[in-house]
Amino acid sequence: MSTVPMAALALLCAAAALGPAGAALRYRPDWASLDARPLPAWFDRAKVGVFVHWGVFSVPAWGSEWFWWHWRGEHRADYESFVRSRFPPGTAYTDFAPLFTAHDFQPRAWARLFQRAGARYVVLTTKHHEGFTNWGSSVSWNWNSVDTGPHRDLVGELGQALRESNIRYGLYHSLLEWFHPLYLADKESGFKTQNFVLKKTMPELYDLVLKYKPDLIWSDGDWDAPESYWNSTSFLAWLYNDSPVKDTVVVNDRWCSNCSCHHGGYYNCADKYKPGTLPAHKWEMCSSIDKLSWGYRSNMNIAELMDETSIIEELVQTVSFGGNYLLNVGPTKEGVIVPIFQERLLALGRWLDTNGEAIYETKPWRVQMENSTSTVWYTSKGPVVYAIFLLWPRDNVLELSSPAPSPDTQVTMLGFAGTLKWQKSPAEGLLITLPCMPASPQSGWALKLEGVK
Amino acid sequence: MSTVPMAALALLCAAAALGPAGAALRYRPDWASLDARPLPAWFDRAKVGVFVHWGVFSVPAWGSEWFWWHWRGEHRADYESFVRSRFPPGTAYTDFAPLFTAHDFQPRAWARLFQRAGARYVVLTTKHHEGFTNWGSSVSWNWNSVDTGPHRDLVGELGQALRESNIRYGLYHSLLEWFHPLYLADKESGFKTQNFVLKKTMPELYDLVLKYKPDLIWSDGDWDAPESYWNSTSFLAWLYNDSPVKDTVVVNDRWCSNCSCHHGGYYNCADKYKPGTLPAHKWEMCSSIDKLSWGYRSNMNIAELMDETSIIEELVQTVSFGGNYLLNVGPTKEGVIVPIFQERLLALGRWLDTNGEAIYETKPWRVQMENSTSTVWYTSKGPVVYAIFLLWPRDNVLELSSPAPSPDTQVTMLGFAGTLKWQKSPAEGLLITLPCMPASPQSGWALKLEGVK
Amino acid sequence: MSTVPMAALALLCAAAALGPAGAALRYRPDWASLDARPLPAWFDRAKVGVFVHWGVFSVPAWGSEWFWWHWRGEHRADYESFVRSRFPPGTAYTDFAPLFTAHDFQPRAWARLFQRAGARYVVLTTKHHEGFTNWGSSVSWNWNSVDTGPHRDLVGELGQALRESNIRYGLYHSLLEWFHPLYLADKESGFKTQNFVLKKTMPELYDLVLKYKPDLIWSDGDWDAPESYWNSTSFLAWLYNDSPVKDTVVVNDRWCSNCSCHHGGYYNCADKYKPGTLPAHKWEMCSSIDKLSWGYRSNMNIAELMDETSIIEELVQTVSFGGNYLLNVGPTKEGVIVPIFQERLLALGRWLDTNGEAIYETKPWRVQMENSTSTVWYTSKGPVVYAIFLLWPRDNVLELSSPAPSPDTQVTMLGFAGTLKWQKSPAEGLLITLPCMPASPQSGWALKLEGVK
Amino acid sequence: MSTVPMAALALLCAAAALGPAGAALRYRPDWASLDARPLPAWFDRAKVGVFVHWGVFSVPAWGSEWFWWHWRGEHRADYESFVRSRFPPGTAYTDFAPLFTAHDFQPRAWARLFQRAGARYVVLTTKHHEGFTNWGSSVSWNWNSVDTGPHRDLVGELGQALRESNIRYGLYHSLLEWFHPLYLADKESGFKTQNFVLKKTMPELYDLVLKYKPDLIWSDGDWDAPESYWNSTSFLAWLYNDSPVKDTVVVNDRWCSNCSCHHGGYYNCADKYKPGTLPAHKWEMCSSIDKLSWGYRSNMNIAELMDETSIIEELVQTVSFGGNYLLNVGPTKEGVIVPIFQERLLALGRWLDTNGEAIYETKPWRVQMENSTSTVWYTSKGPVVYAIFLLWPRDNVLELSSPAPSPDTQVTMLGFAGTLKWQKSPAEGLLITLPCMPASPQSGWALKLEGVK
Repeated sequence: MSTVPMAALALLCAAAALGPAGAALRYRPDWASLDARPLPAWFDRAKVGVFVHWGVFSVPAWGSEWFWWHWRGEHRADYESFVRSRFPPGTAYTDFAPLFTAHDFQPRAWARLFQRAGARYVVLTTKHHEGFTNWGSSVSWNWNSVDTGPHRDLVGELGQALRESNIRYGLYHSLLEWFHPLYLADKESGFKTQNFVLKKTMPELYDLVLKYKPDLIWSDGDWDAPESYWNSTSFLAWLYNDSPVKDTVVVNDRWCSNCSCHHGGYYNCADKYKPGTLPAHKWEMCSSIDKLSWGYRSNMNIAELMDETSIIEELVQTVSFGGNYLLNVGPTKEGVIVPIFQERLLALGRWLDTNGEAIYETKPWRVQMENSTSTVWYTSKGPVVYAIFLLWPRDNVLELSSPAPSPDTQVTMLGFAGTLKWQKSPAEGLLITLPCMPASPQSGWALKLEGVK
Repeated sequence: MSTVPMAALALLCAAAALGPAGAALRYRPDWASLDARPLPAWFDRAKVGVFVHWGVFSVPAWGSEWFWWHWRGEHRADYESFVRSRFPPGTAYTDFAPLFTAHDFQPRAWARLFQRAGARYVVLTTKHHEGFTNWGSSVSWNWNSVDTGPHRDLVGELGQALRESNIRYGLYHSLLEWFHPLYLADKESGFKTQNFVLKKTMPELYDLVLKYKPDLIWSDGDWDAPESYWNSTSFLAWLYNDSPVKDTVVVNDRWCSNCSCHHGGYYNCADKYKPGTLPAHKWEMCSSIDKLSWGYRSNMNIAELMDETSIIEELVQTVSFGGNYLLNVGPTKEGVIVPIFQERLLALGRWLDTNGEAIYETKPWRVQMENSTSTVWYTSKGPVVYAIFLLWPRDNVLELSSPAPSPDTQVTMLGFAGTLKWQKSPAEGLLITLPCMPASPQSGWALKLEGVK
Repeated sequence: MSTVPMAALALLCAAAALGPAGAALRYRPDWASLDARPLPAWFDRAKVGVFVHWGVFSVPAWGSEWFWWHWRGEHRADYESFVRSRFPPGTAYTDFAPLFTAHDFQPRAWARLFQRAGARYVVLTTKHHEGFTNWGSSVSWNWNSVDTGPHRDLVGELGQALRESNIRYGLYHSLLEWFHPLYLADKESGFKTQNFVLKKTMPELYDLVLKYKPDLIWSDGDWDAPESYWNSTSFLAWLYNDSPVKDTVVVNDRWCSNCSCHHGGYYNCADKYKPGTLPAHKWEMCSSIDKLSWGYRSNMNIAELMDETSIIEELVQTVSFGGNYLLNVGPTKEGVIVPIFQERLLALGRWLDTNGEAIYETKPWRVQMENSTSTVWYTSKGPVVYAIFLLWPRDNVLELSSPAPSPDTQVTMLGFAGTLKWQKSPAEGLLITLPCMPASPQSGWALKLEGVK
Repeated sequence: MSTVPMAALALLCAAAALGPAGAALRYRPDWASLDARPLPAWFDRAKVGVFVHWGVFSVPAWGSEWFWWHWRGEHRADYESFVRSRFPPGTAYTDFAPLFTAHDFQPRAWARLFQRAGARYVVLTTKHHEGFTNWGSSVSWNWNSVDTGPHRDLVGELGQALRESNIRYGLYHSLLEWFHPLYLADKESGFKTQNFVLKKTMPELYDLVLKYKPDLIWSDGDWDAPESYWNSTSFLAWLYNDSPVKDTVVVNDRWCSNCSCHHGGYYNCADKYKPGTLPAHKWEMCSSIDKLSWGYRSNMNIAELMDETSIIEELVQTVSFGGNYLLNVGPTKEGVIVPIFQERLLALGRWLDTNGEAIYETKPWRVQMENSTSTVWYTSKGPVVYAIFLLWPRDNVLELSSPAPSPDTQVTMLGFAGTLKWQKSPAEGLLITLPCMPASPQSGWALKLEGVK
């Protein structure tokens, strides 16, 4: 079926065996070398992505995508009671797989939606900690989306649709699998044996890269074991040196127990990480419309979901701090992205239609955020400075203390024709008179400041 | 289990036998007498209700609540294909009942949501055309929510929660049942036999009234047969003369094939009926957030749903024309009102929090709608006139040609402190200067006009 | 769908109204008249029948066909535990219906099997106490074999196959239904109301007769209520006077709480009834291969089943005492008559192939059973006497004390060519020398005695 | 979970590395050495075993245990139609696993039944070609009886019960797995890669031996590939030299594509193999009560099953030819051995109760079968010769031409007290007068001949 991963491993070994001679031109499988690789430029410019958590956990659709772990790993009473009251006695997690039908999954409609949301890249869970692969992995027999459930190559189908829409494609992949017997055995050995890595993780990572040629690999599930167990550096060296995506691929930082926030490509650090000051390293903030879960929950309540205002607030803060914003939705087991998620994504898209100029391809400015307000954030593009304010001032006058105006200073508001009146603030900065525009979007407005410092 | 309906029928017969002597004080079972009954006052004052379509159709949750009919009555190819591709061979509609679990049904949370939506009454489908009863009807054995599926008295549980929230309770009830063998036999006889009416419809209507003491009976499914078949007048005479809700109960107009828009209590006329001028008879406009269905559809797309603006537009037009507005949601088979429906209901509620004064307990004014704009609508309460405008005028000046101002005229805007400046229009009416308020709700604003004619 | 039962009722009323004038020629709806009807001759001659218990109880296939009652009527812990451990939470008995598939039901193969078993008639449960009808009853909506489960007319299909094999057809029908709400209401009224009888029982009995023209009606479920409730005499008068099967139909005795063993056609008295002496009235002994159940049990153990010897013993004793023998099998939910039942039925058939002459169309003899042995039983046909012995005598000599030999007495053994030697017994009767025949069936042998008294 | 197989492999490698030095005392991993091992004595003495085919194929219970292959490997129309008409669209074979409940599996009741059947050993399918393991194999994640379906260690539970009943325990194990991706990849490579053997087959074989200490390993599924692929000789060398069962374990001959009937322990040759003359090598005949399948079929017809006579005939012929007889039953998915199988096994046991002396622990005689009759078969035990005849002679005189009588010759019949009269046959051999015993078992009788040659 697939001897490719083996071939790839062989190539890798061969490459590794070349030794110091070729080292000058190639990345070595160590962090010093790998961390030195420049991040392909597309990523920082993209700013906005959509994260998609989809898997067998979308079937119980309750609690979170960690359902299996909470139920059978931790034996939490609420999960045990949920299963007992809704499923036949003797139900195992694997029994959910046939119900993961993807009947309504229309990859092109998804791609169109993500495009309208303003996403420049999309990251799909190809395999979460449950180990179920959303493509026909040859080392995940009967526990993948082709053998059971959808009977479709979900990773491939979404990839094709995204390419057609010119959206970059990222693949989420969990290194660990909670209940894989080989992983459990390796763990019991104190990670001295590596059977799981050799027979499952690495073959799958190579398979993913060779089959789907991703723009991004979003690694996860690294925390239990050190690099010496995962062999991530070997994989990354191959990925950077020899893989078909070596020039464009971006990776994150979850590759070993001490990697996060220290090694790899861009940093995620923690989930929903919010730095207090401008980080030195390119990073990404991942967040989820459903505040309680990344995977779909069928009993979501509106109060548990982010509203448009919070999403734009997070986006603006993240971009001001130099990060990318990856906003998550969890489709249903049938492959529906439910209306409330569409609503939020489209609201984000509408906001970006007007204000995207202040987001995409920007750089952090010398100041990130107005001291006085904490609701005004800056970005920049060359000499232009954007001030994005999240609350409309009561008296229609916005005070910006950070930009130093000059006689040439010109202020416009994205989505509003004409320039705005401003004056020097008695203290420092500008006082800007806003227009009266009741029908404007209410969750943030962007001023374009030209001729300021 | 329930000999009550029989007893009630006996009472009714006894009453009917009293003959002309008691006639002066009692309603006779004919339209002339019944139509003369004044509508209990609470209904016109309530203005806003929520409609809930919930039943076995919530299980396939596809197409519409007419699923069974389209599938097995009309043999529509799309429905046959849907079932063939998603359910085991030999699947019958009745096989869906066990999947109607209501696992997540929390009647108090529903009541709280409807209250926050501003609803003064709620109408639940106790039995749709499929015949499945959402209470333990004794003449619907094994085809009701107590014997199968939820194993709960849905009608009773919601009723209790609504009472606790001081919301009026309406019961939707379908006279016909598409596939009931007794109904089909009666139909085949040209409605000369009445077995279905005597053994099913009437016992259930009496049972509903005696058990749940509804404020409203929302009859439906009347179109096939005349009054001589349904015997609706006998039921209504009992309802108005002798039932426990005789003083408060309101009914609609779907009681026989020629009844709609002509007989009964208030009029619904057609679904989503929109009159062009002020009707002479109290009426109600029922509408659905999901524009394609009254029952839940699991694959709804946001474009198929009403947005906040359309809902408010419909509400305002309806109330201006003297109608009540009944807005529908379809819960899932588990009893979840999905977030997008919560979002819309809460948006309606927030709008009413500010503008309800112009809606609840109002009367139509002498003019319903501004000729010039079609986006300004009037209501009134005593001497006060409310002008509700749906589009913010570009220059912040609203022209109202219908009200005749006087020196005492005072204009305020609901939700906005202080009065508004106005001047006589060069033509007739007023020119009102609106405030600059960008953070206001964007889907309709109400001006309160005092001292106009 | 079916106005026939109504028409039939009308006919009946009309007939009843004829009054005394037609009384001489017609049966009156009272026991005195009905009991006087001579039993159609075919029944007594048939002797051997097969009983078939098939219904929704074949789905759990556990305990017995009284599953529903033990579970939900009596709340027996073993039944509750069975359901809890094998079915999803909230399972209702009605949820079993879709699993009653009859996928493997081949009525002609059944008929061929029953024919090979020597059955002259077959009785099928058209409706057991659970109320599920094995035909498309119009008063059992969604609880019949056409609307759900098999989606087939089981009663009709088996009937047709039996007719083609010249086997008489009997319809088992339960008057009561454990959980029918109308029945429960009637019961609560002390059987003063008769809604259940008028709307369910009688329409179904008339429907069965008119549609399937049965040779036998095997009534059951009569014990709760008197004749004044069931109105059985009216039905029987119609059946005997006006039905299409009035000349051939046979009924049993379970028509009211005091009927069994006293009124009706032939008597069943109790299940598995065994009289100690020759009854005065024609009777039938019903028995079941599975000693613990009439319906199929998926976990039957061989020790719980009758073996060939017991079956032949029961048959012989029953026929000697003037009874018919009705032997039961319970098919699976798919319609398979499992091999062990086939094995027993075919063993019975093989025995009858040889010995049927001593069974079919016989009459009881003046003596039924040898005093001395209890293992020798007599039947007769005109002057011929049959002695059937169930144990082979150790010394190959059989002593018969009851028949009085004469010089012309001739003794042969069914299945054995030639005559047997005999001599007068020293006491009275005969001593018969049996042949040495080790390969003979081992469960009873029949001697034909000619010229004895 | 289980590092044992790895440890065992290491041991094996170490052992293999010892080289020629220890060769005298140890078996080498080649056929010359392994074939020379004497078969442990218990096996030839046992003669009678029961074979049990149980697995996920017991769920569809249709066609045969090759269900998956016929359906998805060969795409046979009857199998495709079966699934389409009885299971939901999109059903995969793996979806059957949760229905393999073993709810009624009582290992002690099975052991008691096998004991009463006269079985001295029992062989259970631990893993058939479908790959589902009936124990918690750590290299068969989610496709084993502990993770899903029964959630029980079936191999272990049956083993314990058999030990308690002093019955030897054999483990059936299929080398190949039809659809395992690693196997398919190896196959595609022309069996040059051995990933499947190294990661699946061998770890499981070692695990089985170490966990369950079997008396017999019944290998199967060897036909596709040569010994160079399977590495069976290495396993067998370990099994004979170092395993915990090295002194008692017996194996069959299905270890490579040319092994059957040539290498290994005893020979099975083909399924249901019947030699025409006395084989030179110890062998075993496996047969199945269901003539069409080894796994359970829910729609078995009695005509498709072996009757008692055929079973005894096969047993007698097999033992006369020096073979063991392994008779198969297929339990249901719930773990029931259905009554007809119990009936057959108990009939065999009753026959052995009387005639076991002529079977157990016997050796073939110098003649196996009477030329003249083909219904008389010989066994021997020291000087005693047993003549087993399968048809009772019409005149009660049995002619045996092979034994040469002497004056001391004594003839008795097992189960019959006293000696039988005999005389020299005019030709050669004996003429034996049989007793008159009609109630004897009818499927074979054994004469014990003492003092014959």
